[in-house]
Amino acid sequence: MAGGARVLALTGGVGGAKLALGLARELGPRELSLLVNTADDFKHLGLHISPDIDTLLYTLSGRSSRERGWGLEGETWQVREALENLGAETWFQLGDRDLATHLLRSGRLAAGDSLTAVTRLLGRAMGLEPEVLPMSDDPVSTVVHTAEGDLPFQHYFVRRACEPAVSGFSFEGIEGAAPNPALLERLAAGEIAAVVICPSNPFVSVDPVLQLPGLWQRIAQLSVPVIAVSPIVGGRAIKGPAAKMLAELGMPVDAGAVARHYAARYPGLVDTFVIDSADAALADSIAELGMAVAVTGTLMESLDDKRRLARFVLARAGL
Amino acid sequence: MAGGARVLALTGGVGGAKLALGLARELGPRELSLLVNTADDFKHLGLHISPDIDTLLYTLSGRSSRERGWGLEGETWQVREALENLGAETWFQLGDRDLATHLLRSGRLAAGDSLTAVTRLLGRAMGLEPEVLPMSDDPVSTVVHTAEGDLPFQHYFVRRACEPAVSGFSFEGIEGAAPNPALLERLAAGEIAAVVICPSNPFVSVDPVLQLPGLWQRIAQLSVPVIAVSPIVGGRAIKGPAAKMLAELGMPVDAGAVARHYAARYPGLVDTFVIDSADAALADSIAELGMAVAVTGTLMESLDDKRRLARFVLARAGL
Repeated sequence: MAGGARVLALTGGVGGAKLALGLARELGPRELSLLVNTADDFKHLGLHISPDIDTLLYTLSGRSSRERGWGLEGETWQVREALENLGAETWFQLGDRDLATHLLRSGRLAAGDSLTAVTRLLGRAMGLEPEVLPMSDDPVSTVVHTAEGDLPFQHYFVRRACEPAVSGFSFEGIEGAAPNPALLERLAAGEIAAVVICPSNPFVSVDPVLQLPGLWQRIAQLSVPVIAVSPIVGGRAIKGPAAKMLAELGMPVDAGAVARHYAARYPGLVDTFVIDSADAALADSIAELGMAVAVTGTLMESLDDKRRLARFVLARAGL
Repeated sequence: MAGGARVLALTGGVGGAKLALGLARELGPRELSLLVNTADDFKHLGLHISPDIDTLLYTLSGRSSRERGWGLEGETWQVREALENLGAETWFQLGDRDLATHLLRSGRLAAGDSLTAVTRLLGRAMGLEPEVLPMSDDPVSTVVHTAEGDLPFQHYFVRRACEPAVSGFSFEGIEGAAPNPALLERLAAGEIAAVVICPSNPFVSVDPVLQLPGLWQRIAQLSVPVIAVSPIVGGRAIKGPAAKMLAELGMPVDAGAVARHYAARYPGLVDTFVIDSADAALADSIAELGMAVAVTGTLMESLDDKRRLARFVLARAGL
């Protein structure tokens, strides 16, 4: 890419992080900015926890646990055991090494640093090259509307293991939340050459990012390629509750429903929608939404898979 | 003791905790209230840390490290190592099990609980019988005036290892800090039968407690015995910087200087001043301050030593 030209990738946690890792490996250190959902952030035991940012930091730095799918490889659990002995809440599992991240972040935030500054510090401490940007330095909190009432996101996601049927979502604080200032600078400077919407949950990972005041409209006006990758493959979510949510919201559980959601909510934003070969039959109906449709294998097990999908997406963006 | 009659012991950390343990072993579970200095409390890595309360909780529940003199026996250091790897400040050493205490406290405080309520919760979780009361639920912060400028207490005490010469102390927030509400109830109900000022640092452990608005005057008006135990033995502090502080403040480094400090600052409060046998020669000059002087061995190495001194103090209080 030309000097200063960057890919902007919008992502939530685990699913999006896989493609983010592929992009990070395919692009130079100054060619990728990751804009990460922070509407899952929450306070727990006095700490500020940013689950999606941490997933990105751990995944990109090669620290994430392969076995568990979350948290750190080689994690230990001394603090959790002591918390259990004190009768404290332990539904959100805090590993010892993971805790160091939360402590450093919480301490710096308490000292007045922005989440952007703290995330940069953590990224440097972990030897990361790509720019990991929280979607906003202002607090936004996803509330999940369920058959059992409104639940804070982590209560729904972790404590209740996504069991309650959802009827909708709201993002508290989003009206007053400014998009990440470093991103705004890059947008203003014309440094963004393409935008990738990673295969993250459209409702609770991508929507809070895109619904920051003015952000999706500004991206749409960039006249650079915007490529979204479906998180739904063969009627199932690779990871997380996206498929269950589609069903509970009364939508078809397929990649087309995700494309329709983006088209309806963000008209004209997505230029190309990437679906899995297993969903090739959906291509025509998605094309009717006014998007180009690109079909390829989107499952990302190995690092090679991730890099291959990243190359495919970058090629669709003309990069 | 008669039903409902209690000993109130004022204490800071390690030195006072030894006598507190002796008192706890000599008295019934409902016969001891410990009022603990919280002017050393501070925020670190987003956590609310109450060093003196924790020392009391750990000492009374038999959890404290014999070897280190602070923190927990059998502690592990996974989080500290991870913090070091992230380049975080680690001058205040956080053990994994100790962290669980700070996390539980910080989480409950953030949820709106008072420090008194959280301390009660922690005490119960650790199986403690005596009542451990923070001196106040309101924040008070010791500032150490030194030759190098003003330092927050933990920076002076831990980070700088008490090196800078002190010229005085102030307790930020103390004017607006109410004494512990549970203590005020006990005082109002006439439940306090005797008051013990433990052998803690007079300047940074006992003074902040006694200088809570109205507290020492209220204790003085109780007309119950008030027994103070000297933290200085043979011209040395058993633990901590009390002797160094006396010298830097231009006072003689002996038990008499502590007695004179109490007599001058809290006239009429202390009825009996307990000094070590090694300091028997000071008895007459201390008696001139209007206090009874009691001489005994005050070194507390073994649990037997602690219980013996506790019995001695209780006997001097007529209990």
